[in-house]
Formats: sequence, C-alpha cells, structure tokens
Amino acid sequence: MEFPTESIKNVVEAFSKLPGIGKKTALRLTLHLMQKSSIEVDNFANALLNLHKNTFRCKKCNHLSDQEICNICLDTKRDNKILCVVEEVGDLLAIEKTGYFKGKYHVLGGKISPLEGIGPNQLSISKLLERIQNEDIQEIIMALSTTQEGETTAFYLSKEIQSINPDIVISLIAKGIPSGASLEFIDELTLSKSLLYRSQYSTLNPQKF
Amino acid sequence: MEFPTESIKNVVEAFSKLPGIGKKTALRLTLHLMQKSSIEVDNFANALLNLHKNTFRCKKCNHLSDQEICNICLDTKRDNKILCVVEEVGDLLAIEKTGYFKGKYHVLGGKISPLEGIGPNQLSISKLLERIQNEDIQEIIMALSTTQEGETTAFYLSKEIQSINPDIVISLIAKGIPSGASLEFIDELTLSKSLLYRSQYSTLNPQKF
Repeated sequence: MEFPTESIKNVVEAFSKLPGIGKKTALRLTLHLMQKSSIEVDNFANALLNLHKNTFRCKKCNHLSDQEICNICLDTKRDNKILCVVEEVGDLLAIEKTGYFKGKYHVLGGKISPLEGIGPNQLSISKLLERIQNEDIQEIIMALSTTQEGETTAFYLSKEIQSINPDIVISLIAKGIPSGASLEFIDELTLSKSLLYRSQYSTLNPQKF
Repeated sequence: MEFPTESIKNVVEAFSKLPGIGKKTALRLTLHLMQKSSIEVDNFANALLNLHKNTFRCKKCNHLSDQEICNICLDTKRDNKILCVVEEVGDLLAIEKTGYFKGKYHVLGGKISPLEGIGPNQLSISKLLERIQNEDIQEIIMALSTTQEGETTAFYLSKEIQSINPDIVISLIAKGIPSGASLEFIDELTLSKSLLYRSQYSTLNPQKF
C-alpha cells in the first residue's frame, strides 16, 4: 500500500508491530493522530520515551516498578508465607484486580517453551529458588497458563522447589468452567477436566487468604 | 486500576485515547512494549514526533502530503474532469486501494454533524466550491458515509455545487448489498434500498473511468 507520506508510513509500521494490530487498524490509528494537535501526539511520544527510562524490574519478585523493590514486595500488610508464581506482569495485574489475593508474587517473565527457544535459564527461576531457600514461604500457588507450556513450567518448577524444600505446599489455580458460561460452548478438554476435578457441593470450602 | 509505575500509567493512558482501544488493550500494548528494547520503543516515539512535522494538507484537495500539493493532484495521468469527494483521508486510501478510480479527489475533513457541532465552515467546502469554479470539472462523485450525516452533507454540497454550475453531473456511490454477503444477514434498510435501486440485468452497464 502506498502511504501519503514517509512519516505516516513510519507510524503505521510502528503501530502494526504491536500485538493484535494489523495494517488496517494501524492506518486508522495513525490517521486519527493526524487529526489531533501535534502537542497531543508529542505527549504520546514522550510517554513512550519515558517508558523504559523510569521503569525497572523489582530485584525481588521481577515485577515492574519505579524503585529497586516494588510496592507489593514492600507491603508489610501482605502475607510473606504465600507466593503466587505468574508468567507475566499482566497476569499479576489481573490477579491484583480481583482484590482477592493478599500474598506476594514472583514473575517468571514467560514460560518454558522449547519451540520458542525459552528454557528455564531465560526465566526468573533461580531467583525464585533463592527466595524459597531464604524466605519462610509455606505455599506456592502456580498461576500459570493452562496450556502445554504452562503445565511443563509448573512441572519443572514443582520438581525444583521440592528438591529444595519438600514440605512446601505447591498448588495450582483451579481449572474448570469460567463464571457465567453456558456448558454447550465450552471445549471438550475444559469440560472433561471440570468433571475430573469436581468438588463435593456440601463440603465445598474455598481457601481464604 | 493501580499501575506499577507512573511511566506505565502514562503510556496506557496515551494508548487508551486512541479509537477502539480500551484500558485493557492499552495495558496489554504497554506491557508488550516493556518487553521490547528501549531502542525499539524510542523508534516508535520518534516516528510519532515526526508525524506532524513532515506531513501537511495538500493545498488543493486537502489530502495528506509531504509537499504543498499531493502526488495525486500532481499526477497528470489522472482525469481532472472527475472529482471524488470523500470525508476523510482513510476513505481516499480505501478507494485508491481498489485501483479502480482514475480521477482526482477532494477530502472534506469530516461530514456535517450538528450533534458534534460540525457545520459546513469546519469542512473544506469553500475550497471545493472554488475548484468547481476554476477547474473544468464535469462530474462530482459523492463517496460519503451512507448515514444520516453523510446524506445531509451530500444534500448540502449538491445544492451549493448546482448553484455554481448547474451542468455539473453529481453522482452518489451505489448503496446496496456488499459483495460476498448473504441476504439473511443484511439489515432491512440496506435490503430495501437495494430493491429500490435495483438495476436491469440485461442493460447493466457499469461506468468505467
């Protein structure tokens, strides 16, 4: 496709490198910005320029922060004994949004994926094992993708964790039917797992934090 | 929602000002950029900084260009006698992509919309009427939205154009069933218009440019 100007082409190409944004949407976004004042567009550009400058990885849990140690790790009201392991910062933020979990986190930075060439060494696993050795952690919740790669990662981690501390409780987030769903639209694997991991109605007693 | 850092919040807010991008997508895009190198993000920022600097409105047709007069207006191979009036640059690019139209364009920069406070004076209409007075234009194709506002704009323009030159042919792009569609999924208004504006099969003779 021919673009009216080189500058427009550059912005369209920058947008279309983002996940889920095709050439058509990228063009629409660029033309939208063309209709905005240059001050507004410059503000956007400056926000981007500052993104990496003022954001670091938490030295403890690998979350994003503007300090060496993130607010969650510093929060003394949260339970240090329970650690939720997630793949990405987006997963952590999604769990935080529920307001339900009051423990601490560890962000792996991805999952083990031989196909994409990501092994345990590319992830923040050694730091996690260090924490297990040095902190008084009693439970590790694996809040990983319910995919083959997520399950491989959970399996690898649980073996490593148990070799350091066999008494630590390792749990997985529940797999099953999402809330508000009609069974007829659920895939077979989810449905069969939801039957396999069924819980008894009368004794149902969800874990509180 | 609480963001890990102020810089992340700023980028999320900049993204979520774009059309069709909600807070959730904005966060996903921002976290994606966090995983990219700062060079890549800076390139994106610089593309944005240059967007307004190197892009102007064509003095003739109001299209976007890096020169005073755009490439389409300068193209001597295109037919000067036929002018396609569109609302936005995106519409012009969509028509150009078909490769079917070989005339010139005029970009209004929007449509008459009393609800949004957009009257004829906010649009590039006086420039269009000037062109009609000064150039040898024989046909004006209104390629406007098939909405109430698009139709109001077409009605207003046709009155103005005819008061200057009653001999000019004014045409509207065809309204009807889009290609590849099943009739059962078409809304009633489109379907009734496609019946109203039906064409005789044997004498069907589409206009060539």
